[in-house]
Amino acid sequence: MAGVPATGDQQQMASVSILLQIVTLGLAFVLGHVLRRHKIYYLQEASASLLIGLIVGGIANISNKEESFRKWFNFREEFFLLFLLPPIIFYSGFSLHPKPFFSNFGAIITFAILGTFIAAMVTGILVYLGGALFLMYKLPFQESLLFGAIVSATDPVTVLAIFQELGTDVNLYALVFGESVLNDAVAISLYRTFVNVRHGPTGSQNFISAVWGFITIFVGSITAGVIVALICALLFKYAGLAVNNLQNLECCLVVLFPYFSYMLAESVGLSGIVAILFCGVVMKHYMFPNLSINAQAFTSSFFELISSLAETFVFIYMGLDIAIEDQSWSHVGFIFFSIIFMLIARVANVFPCAYLINLIRPLSKQIPMNHQKALCLCGLRGAMAFALALQSTHDLPEGHGRTILTATTAIIVLTVLLIGGSTSTMLEALEVIGENNNVGETADEENEYLAPAFVTDSDGSPSQNLKTRFRQLQQSTTSFTAFDKNILTPFFTASNGQGLPLLDGNHGSGKGSFAFIRILLRNGYSL
Amino acid sequence: MAGVPATGDQQQMASVSILLQIVTLGLAFVLGHVLRRHKIYYLQEASASLLIGLIVGGIANISNKEESFRKWFNFREEFFLLFLLPPIIFYSGFSLHPKPFFSNFGAIITFAILGTFIAAMVTGILVYLGGALFLMYKLPFQESLLFGAIVSATDPVTVLAIFQELGTDVNLYALVFGESVLNDAVAISLYRTFVNVRHGPTGSQNFISAVWGFITIFVGSITAGVIVALICALLFKYAGLAVNNLQNLECCLVVLFPYFSYMLAESVGLSGIVAILFCGVVMKHYMFPNLSINAQAFTSSFFELISSLAETFVFIYMGLDIAIEDQSWSHVGFIFFSIIFMLIARVANVFPCAYLINLIRPLSKQIPMNHQKALCLCGLRGAMAFALALQSTHDLPEGHGRTILTATTAIIVLTVLLIGGSTSTMLEALEVIGENNNVGETADEENEYLAPAFVTDSDGSPSQNLKTRFRQLQQSTTSFTAFDKNILTPFFTASNGQGLPLLDGNHGSGKGSFAFIRILLRNGYSL
Repeated sequence: MAGVPATGDQQQMASVSILLQIVTLGLAFVLGHVLRRHKIYYLQEASASLLIGLIVGGIANISNKEESFRKWFNFREEFFLLFLLPPIIFYSGFSLHPKPFFSNFGAIITFAILGTFIAAMVTGILVYLGGALFLMYKLPFQESLLFGAIVSATDPVTVLAIFQELGTDVNLYALVFGESVLNDAVAISLYRTFVNVRHGPTGSQNFISAVWGFITIFVGSITAGVIVALICALLFKYAGLAVNNLQNLECCLVVLFPYFSYMLAESVGLSGIVAILFCGVVMKHYMFPNLSINAQAFTSSFFELISSLAETFVFIYMGLDIAIEDQSWSHVGFIFFSIIFMLIARVANVFPCAYLINLIRPLSKQIPMNHQKALCLCGLRGAMAFALALQSTHDLPEGHGRTILTATTAIIVLTVLLIGGSTSTMLEALEVIGENNNVGETADEENEYLAPAFVTDSDGSPSQNLKTRFRQLQQSTTSFTAFDKNILTPFFTASNGQGLPLLDGNHGSGKGSFAFIRILLRNGYSL
Repeated sequence: MAGVPATGDQQQMASVSILLQIVTLGLAFVLGHVLRRHKIYYLQEASASLLIGLIVGGIANISNKEESFRKWFNFREEFFLLFLLPPIIFYSGFSLHPKPFFSNFGAIITFAILGTFIAAMVTGILVYLGGALFLMYKLPFQESLLFGAIVSATDPVTVLAIFQELGTDVNLYALVFGESVLNDAVAISLYRTFVNVRHGPTGSQNFISAVWGFITIFVGSITAGVIVALICALLFKYAGLAVNNLQNLECCLVVLFPYFSYMLAESVGLSGIVAILFCGVVMKHYMFPNLSINAQAFTSSFFELISSLAETFVFIYMGLDIAIEDQSWSHVGFIFFSIIFMLIARVANVFPCAYLINLIRPLSKQIPMNHQKALCLCGLRGAMAFALALQSTHDLPEGHGRTILTATTAIIVLTVLLIGGSTSTMLEALEVIGENNNVGETADEENEYLAPAFVTDSDGSPSQNLKTRFRQLQQSTTSFTAFDKNILTPFFTASNGQGLPLLDGNHGSGKGSFAFIRILLRNGYSL
């Protein structure tokens, strides 16, 4: 209060910082809109947000050194992981085309798990070797691996925005999307494992238990997310909430469930990201048709809004923190070489994994070379890498946390601004985006969702045996579709005649396309 | 992660606590719904939430003493004031009938400013005298006044819920609502002033500057809220965002503006509560009709949802904290007498203020005795008192902050559970609620919004002069209505033929009544 500075001072500083953040958020939204409207793809919304954050943070940093003010600009990993990340990942799952995602699930898992592991190891080993050969600042071996894990977490926001804007092949979209979302969970696990290995004894025993722990966590998290979503579907099927005067209750509960799955998974030591992603996918499929028509309209807009706000805010928040954080810029060589090693690791991740996948896949389903190159380009680094790098400054108090943070920051800023800016040009050069490669609505949905064709190619390669197995897997996927249609959907979803057409009609609605007048139309809703 | 406890431990405890809070929130919603459905008014939704919070907090407290776990159950005033309070207050303003509010504005201001001041002083002086007469634990005079300010912040949630459920006179509703919302701002100001006086020199100079500071802040805050809302109205009138593919941008900006007004006011030392309340009133009146029809539907549901979540969560959060906070229960006498003094202060606040208002008002507009008694009953204490009491433990480190906190806690729990539970019975006995006293939609809207009648009563009382002035004020109110209709509304609001009927039709829509199918219907929106 004016004239009463004694007690309200700290809160006033908090208000000023939050005010600045709101203004910045508003600016970023407007700027993003202007950029989209004028089809300026070399400055993406995410890059613009990062830049605005950097500028505002820089100005605040110069003009005001007060601690209570800066405190609100600091990127807190806790806040990011508990409050900003869940809505983004949930909406990714909720707005997902499930069929291309699941028909490419094997490839996505390969890229996300094996690929991320390769990328982390390659980066880590190269950084260690670079240090040993006096090319760059020397990190101990375990810290090099930790750094490798940190910079292996890719961020999908920028690239997916381009894909949604310009259209691409559904399979490529599913690959990029799935890889970058699941990859975050893998990078966190690798990071935590390396931190743990650093404190504990090393050895093959430890390695095997880490791999086993990782598999358990992955499967457990998927299970947790799916079960929460199914319980939610049953609740809304039988609780009779879809009547007119209970929409507030209905919406409150729908909004709480995804967050519940995230926190449930995290609180039992599983991966919240994986859980909430699958919770989103399953909720959309089984729970959403059980909602009243108003609640459907409201919740899909709500999740979209919250996710856009969180997404934009993450980049601003990162920019603000980068501007005010004490960086250790003394190791320019380290930054330079780590960027090069990271790029090498990306190549060593994508192409071998794609080769393996193509070995197994039938000819008609091979990942073409231009898709592989596009996937390689899509490995920008974002908020997850930043959160892990910040975490490392706490986990390595006696180590080189600051150096790692500065290098990661440099990698993020460079990839988001430079690679992010040039992505649309490069993707156009690869001929993977454009009007012939539309995502979703304009594509022939029947065709794209067909169960994989059983092409008979009779080469006598040693992978023949694997191929047979994969086909069995595909067969099981096909029978899952039937099982879903005949058993699961009737069990979890109310058959009020309005459910399924709605669900299908709403797939892949891009950003900014508010669903509900369309929903009303689709259902011939007459007033 | 399982088997990797080194780093994820603290975050895991955070997840467990948040998980518990989500479950509690869900439970409270469902329980509140069941209570409403079965018309059980002696246990309100707010009381139920408080009880659930107390129980869950109690269990957590017994079973787990870990600090990082308890940390997430602590009620943080900062979090309450910056994140939970703004949506509640904004939605109060947004869902307000503006006309009864403004036609009773003089009375509301009298109750809120003069009444709260009386209540704080009476409580403070009685507590000091009680201590001096050895009736109860002795607080120093300034701390007694501080305590008086803390327990003068009333909470509207429970009573307004009953009014909305059972219906009441629009003027009584406006009085209770306006008093309890503005009263919070006054209590905060008084609290901060007393803390400041405690540190600085005392004297009449200081008192006058405090009063002047208070008036400046109050008027300044209203101005800030109104200006932000008008800028928002103009933005949406001219920016052309109400077209089909920009609804995401539109909704993001609408959601940011109220928060902007709150933070703007707080950051320049004004009262955020007052600013966001008036921002809500003005945004509803001038900005809302400028939105696209989808955005209107979405934003009104959005604000309602966020406000319900925040409201319910505040009581749970308070319950959790009360259960785990170290209370100093040694001063039972202090608690007992402070409750009695608080009740006396409430009486000393309502009836003299009502007498003063009735002196000035024409006969037809007098506040009847049953309304005065109802107003007296509606003085429950809630989250704002709790936040101030917690704040006092920091502001009085060497003082009796703990005693004040415990007494405030006891007052809150008792008034919410006992008075809150009996309110509906007592209000029924006063014949102020029930079907003949409906709020909003079923009332004759034309009639209730008429400009005040100029009844000529010719008593020669000394207040005659004041009466004349008040009538001039009323006249100015009447001309404001005309000014608003002819000048302001056309200036700030797009005249697309869909704006105003919509706005009027949506007034006073109670809880749980999602607006948008009704909006579509009202506008003859044909698909």
